[in-house]
Order: sequence, then C-alpha cells, then structure tokens
Amino acid sequence: METIFSKIVRGEVSAYKILEDKRFLAFLDVYPLVPGHTLVIPKEPVDYIFDLEPSLLADLHVFSQKVAAAIKTATGCKRVGVAVIGLEVPHAHIHLVPINQMADMNFSNPKLQLEPSVMEEIATKIRQAL
Amino acid sequence: METIFSKIVRGEVSAYKILEDKRFLAFLDVYPLVPGHTLVIPKEPVDYIFDLEPSLLADLHVFSQKVAAAIKTATGCKRVGVAVIGLEVPHAHIHLVPINQMADMNFSNPKLQLEPSVMEEIATKIRQAL
Repeated sequence: METIFSKIVRGEVSAYKILEDKRFLAFLDVYPLVPGHTLVIPKEPVDYIFDLEPSLLADLHVFSQKVAAAIKTATGCKRVGVAVIGLEVPHAHIHLVPINQMADMNFSNPKLQLEPSVMEEIATKIRQAL
Repeated sequence: METIFSKIVRGEVSAYKILEDKRFLAFLDVYPLVPGHTLVIPKEPVDYIFDLEPSLLADLHVFSQKVAAAIKTATGCKRVGVAVIGLEVPHAHIHLVPINQMADMNFSNPKLQLEPSVMEEIATKIRQAL
C-alpha cells in the first residue's frame, strides 16, 4: 500500500536518513518518544511485518542490529528497545528506541517535537557511529 | 547469566511451552498484558538481544514468526505486536503480544493474573494452530 514511507523511500518526502541499502531504510521517527528514536523499514510496501518472507524478515532484523549499535553509541543509552505495533502506518516498521528505563518505551507518552537542527545533529551522530 | 529463563529451558521451572527447538523456546508470559502474550527466547543465556550473533538473531525472529502466526490464529487478534525491552530479566526475550489496539502494547498496563487452567487452554490453542 502507498504510504508516507513509500514517499520517503522514493525521496519525495524528506527524512533524517540513518542507513540505507537496496532493501531496507532506517530514518529518525519525526514523532520520537526520546531523541534518537529510529524507524527501520523494508522498502517493499508490506503492511504486516509477519507477512514478510522469512529471509527478508531475518535480514531486516540484522540490518536493524547495525543501526541499534550505532544508536547506542551515539546516545549513550542503556539499551535499544525494539517495538513493532503496526496499527498506525500500514507499512511494516520496527521502532528502535534508545531507553534507560522501561517507561521510555511507553507509546502513550507524549511525543517530542525536536527542532530540525536537533534532529539533524542526532542523525549525524548516529550515522557517524555506524 | 543464570535467570529464571535458564531454569525454564532446563525444565527446572515449569512453563506453558508453545514451541521449542534446539536453539529457541517460546512459552506464555506468566504476567500477560493480554491472553496469549508469549515470550520467545534463545536458549543461550545472552542478556542483550543485539549481542546475539547476527545469524542467531535472524533465526530467532524467523522462529518468532511461526509462533506469531499461531498466536494470531488462536486468539483472533488483529496483529501480533513485537517488543524487546530488556531491562527486566537479563536474558534476551521477545514479547509477542496479540493486539487489537495500540493500548494493548502498553507495558505499564496492569498485568493479568489468569488461572492455570486458562493458561493451559490458551497454550493448547496456540500449539494446535502451529
């Protein structure tokens, strides 16, 4: 299904990109729970993550592992939490959330609104840690 | 590190097991957010999920995919959500949560206390859907 994520993949909508290859893309969530909150998506517009071919699902998580390591280095968080909810944008996406306490992963928390310059700074730090 | 999960793996602590192979184990969370909430772990006692070897991480998610499909069939949920937080038991584990709305994935919600007979019934239904 055509979503905002397809537009980001095609470059029609801008995003703070972190890492990209032929099949996957990681970029900052513009509505972050905490600074550094990143989304990882398959470029193929599949809605439900468990409908991905097993090998693609596997590779998506290995791609996420690289991104998570860089988020941890860049933010100094204790852990990078992982969440897939899938009831919002109908294009499978993994949330990678730098956390220091369980409450940081609470999706009912108010989302942050960070200045573009701050988002760019965070993205740059994560990219440099890759 | 030795945790309750190692004891479950060795059969020293009982659990409502869903699926098991040489490397992975899925069993019902005894403190479920919703009925059918399942944990998937590597048998190897690694604390942080992103410290797993990439190939093991990949296979863990493919194993989880099978379990998630059975949970969806057995519970009739809209989606199976995925969460890895990792600040509680220091043995990597994936939460698979049957969800119908975003709030079902809120880990600050009170946990359910289900009767053993109800837990066994849920486990049986999920196993039959595998």
